[in-house]
Amino acid sequence: MRFPSLDDLRTSCRDPRDGDAASADAAALRQAELTKPPGSLGRLEELVIWLAHWQRRSFPRLDRVKIVVFAGNHGVTARGVSAYPSEVTGQMVANYASGGAAINQIAQLVQAELTVVPLDLDRPTCDFTLGPAMQSSEFLAAVDIGYRSVPAECDLLAIGEMGIGNTTAAAALCAALLGGGASRWVGRGTGVDDAGLQRKRKTVEAALARHQSILADPLAIAAALGGRELAAMLGATLAARDHAIPILLDGFVGTAAVLPLARTEPRALDHCRVAHVSAEAGHRALLAELGLNPLLDLEMRLGEASGAAVAIQLLRAATACHHGMATFTEADVAGRTND
Amino acid sequence: MRFPSLDDLRTSCRDPRDGDAASADAAALRQAELTKPPGSLGRLEELVIWLAHWQRRSFPRLDRVKIVVFAGNHGVTARGVSAYPSEVTGQMVANYASGGAAINQIAQLVQAELTVVPLDLDRPTCDFTLGPAMQSSEFLAAVDIGYRSVPAECDLLAIGEMGIGNTTAAAALCAALLGGGASRWVGRGTGVDDAGLQRKRKTVEAALARHQSILADPLAIAAALGGRELAAMLGATLAARDHAIPILLDGFVGTAAVLPLARTEPRALDHCRVAHVSAEAGHRALLAELGLNPLLDLEMRLGEASGAAVAIQLLRAATACHHGMATFTEADVAGRTND
Repeated sequence: MRFPSLDDLRTSCRDPRDGDAASADAAALRQAELTKPPGSLGRLEELVIWLAHWQRRSFPRLDRVKIVVFAGNHGVTARGVSAYPSEVTGQMVANYASGGAAINQIAQLVQAELTVVPLDLDRPTCDFTLGPAMQSSEFLAAVDIGYRSVPAECDLLAIGEMGIGNTTAAAALCAALLGGGASRWVGRGTGVDDAGLQRKRKTVEAALARHQSILADPLAIAAALGGRELAAMLGATLAARDHAIPILLDGFVGTAAVLPLARTEPRALDHCRVAHVSAEAGHRALLAELGLNPLLDLEMRLGEASGAAVAIQLLRAATACHHGMATFTEADVAGRTND
Repeated sequence: MRFPSLDDLRTSCRDPRDGDAASADAAALRQAELTKPPGSLGRLEELVIWLAHWQRRSFPRLDRVKIVVFAGNHGVTARGVSAYPSEVTGQMVANYASGGAAINQIAQLVQAELTVVPLDLDRPTCDFTLGPAMQSSEFLAAVDIGYRSVPAECDLLAIGEMGIGNTTAAAALCAALLGGGASRWVGRGTGVDDAGLQRKRKTVEAALARHQSILADPLAIAAALGGRELAAMLGATLAARDHAIPILLDGFVGTAAVLPLARTEPRALDHCRVAHVSAEAGHRALLAELGLNPLLDLEMRLGEASGAAVAIQLLRAATACHHGMATFTEADVAGRTND
């Protein structure tokens, strides 16, 4: 395994690879010369400069775009925290395989290669109100699978998840690492009713009480309160950094999954953009805590990388403009009059 | 001409065609059966239902998507209201023809057909601080060109504009029809400096004073303070309604152009969605006044339908999911446990 212990993982997190500032500068210079008022493509300009920085090329490419969806099951579902039964995780993995889910349609539309990685679905994590969701070794194994799921040659990675019960795990992670109590982070997930919402809150409160002694250790919390699919997303995010691949994160669970990285090393998510702010209750607060500005706000809350996949289109638009537009000189268009 | 007088135009505006509620209902029913928690695709679900309503089909198509960019010149540029000289309007039209502008790249990416319609570029409108920008006949001729630019057979229309000086015209329209004074609506457009901003404000104030007697007549205001490209966008919006074509509006100028329609008939923009909120100062307030919720907020302020073109991708994602996803029954995925 790449990370034999939590300490090895922690050491690796604290030494993130840098992007290439010269490529970013060259991309910014080109943006200023294209036939448009400077800055008028807004965040599309920022995105192409960010891609240039992490791809280490002044003309970033999106030829090889990969979407990886990790799936896991959660023992905490025994506490009635989801509107759907646990079997749905595996049934949706089958639906991905046969091409019937939202992510299949969007991946095809945006010309991205979709890979789904189920993680021990028949062996749910433990109910984290009773003990740690995963032992360190189980957690590290899932991180490793996530790490190895990222190809070294890839222009952009979008990551997401499927796991009945995992908004409860995500809320528990946020409450443990950011404070504010269960009510700040618990939402309706796939759509629990008021009684289910109450059960989710109590579950997160019980988890916080149970694991109080390790609240200062983000990676230990990731093992104790997370899930295999969240651990794999963390591993994939580390791998992308090592391979200089920019990442689109998806929604609440996808962001919560990498929160332990950000709490370990402030630069850990510099190669990530958050595709959208989810309608799930805690996501906006989580993004604010991380200082991340989502690209889309479409009230989506499906997971399975669906928001990240939609946002790939924005990067394609940004990149198409960067490559294809004429400069003022090339098009013989007059410049500004007053400077 | 389709509308021989402002009265004819007004009469037509007040009798907008309805969409098909049965198609919308059928689309909503299908959305509820697809393999996702109900509502979890957020605004993508609303969009596909809206498309169904206006296309009058429960399975909306996006096979024929058209982008039309109207270009016009403005006499008010003589007052130093833009950072760029008027010649840039024609130079950018040439840039569109040779494929060098942002909209060329984005249109190609989203597989939309781009048409650019220059409107008497060598004959700018009059300086509206001195008199009406256009006589009624000139205004109606531009409306007519816009109307005729829309093909009867089209699944989606995105409209936009190019015209040095036209954020001043748009701000004047908003100030005249919505109040609040010039400072509420005047922004930096393509990027005027502080002195230019001051000149823009004074220009709009002078226009309001000059045309005070017609402030209660939205279509007369559209002629007196607008521009040919704005009039053409108004005409295209009317044509799309007559042909049951849903529309994506673009930014500040594109929304201001159809404000006179909305002030004439409250249902006039029901077949429109606003693609994005522009970084141009007045757009957010204008959308709030119209009760329109933009799809994107990417700090774009380029015009030329660039924001609308980017948003086409969202509709394609929504439509792809609607067509391609499996239902719970088809995929043999279990439903909710608690209802």
